[in-house]
Amino acid sequence: MDIVVRRVEPGDYEAIAHGFADESAYSGTLQLPMPSVEMWRKRLAEPREGHHVFVACVEGQVVGHAGLHPASNTGNPRRAHVMSIGMAVPSAWQGKGVGKALMKTLCDFADGWLNITRLELTVFTDNERAIALYKKFGFEIEGTHRTYALRAGKYADTYSMGRVRFKGDVHLVPNEGTK
Amino acid sequence: MDIVVRRVEPGDYEAIAHGFADESAYSGTLQLPMPSVEMWRKRLAEPREGHHVFVACVEGQVVGHAGLHPASNTGNPRRAHVMSIGMAVPSAWQGKGVGKALMKTLCDFADGWLNITRLELTVFTDNERAIALYKKFGFEIEGTHRTYALRAGKYADTYSMGRVRFKGDVHLVPNEGTK
Repeated sequence: MDIVVRRVEPGDYEAIAHGFADESAYSGTLQLPMPSVEMWRKRLAEPREGHHVFVACVEGQVVGHAGLHPASNTGNPRRAHVMSIGMAVPSAWQGKGVGKALMKTLCDFADGWLNITRLELTVFTDNERAIALYKKFGFEIEGTHRTYALRAGKYADTYSMGRVRFKGDVHLVPNEGTK
Repeated sequence: MDIVVRRVEPGDYEAIAHGFADESAYSGTLQLPMPSVEMWRKRLAEPREGHHVFVACVEGQVVGHAGLHPASNTGNPRRAHVMSIGMAVPSAWQGKGVGKALMKTLCDFADGWLNITRLELTVFTDNERAIALYKKFGFEIEGTHRTYALRAGKYADTYSMGRVRFKGDVHLVPNEGTK
């Protein structure tokens, strides 16, 4: 099965909304059930600055999507080295390598082209398949957040996970002004 | 020393900007050095929906401020029970009960009037005074986030802390629609 990952385009709105109609897609993210097609049309028609969103396709059909998002909505320069990851793969396409193809794209893009040194994400603690995938790409569990979000009438816990590509402070010019 | 906590008002912009000129105030938060007075004038002139910001005053002088902020910038209803806390007290006023007075206001406001059941915050791991204060108000360390933000030329780690006031799912009417 050939999985092709490409940029999301405005015309993908119906496929994305359809994907989020899947119970495991909205439960596993922070989306609501019964997604609005019109909301997704608008969202994809006006891409937000600094967000990089991709879709995975099989024989031309969108089977999942994922994005790199600025860690700070206000564009805080003290967190410019950080981006957060979001991903959704409808249940019919889980376990087939779609998530892996999307994660590889996100990590290669962030590492190789955006010079992002910290990636972070949030995942429900019982989403074992996703957690295993993130670990394969170097993410570690950094925290457990109790009653993080409502899910089907219950407050569910999440893990925060982080992937730090680079650690240290290399100064080729002595940095006298900071301490 | 009498500490009075009240709502921030548009006229407080010079005091807030002046407070953030203090090294420990910008280092301990995600602000930049050399705050713009004009930026703070604009920000306070246009209060954001759903944010509740307070100042602590001693003899009419602003000596610190703190706020309750929606956990999700997009107003995600699945996190409507959560708010995040930010606080800044310039070094000259630390250790005098200002932080305690602000935290009491935030917790009472969130618990008693907004029905927030989860409060969360981020703090640099070496900010021992703040961490001790948050623990007094029931916050627990939930995670450690490596290289979270740049601070004076180095990537610094943070803790995420959470305070969960209520746990469980009480249904007075059987909730057949959810699982």
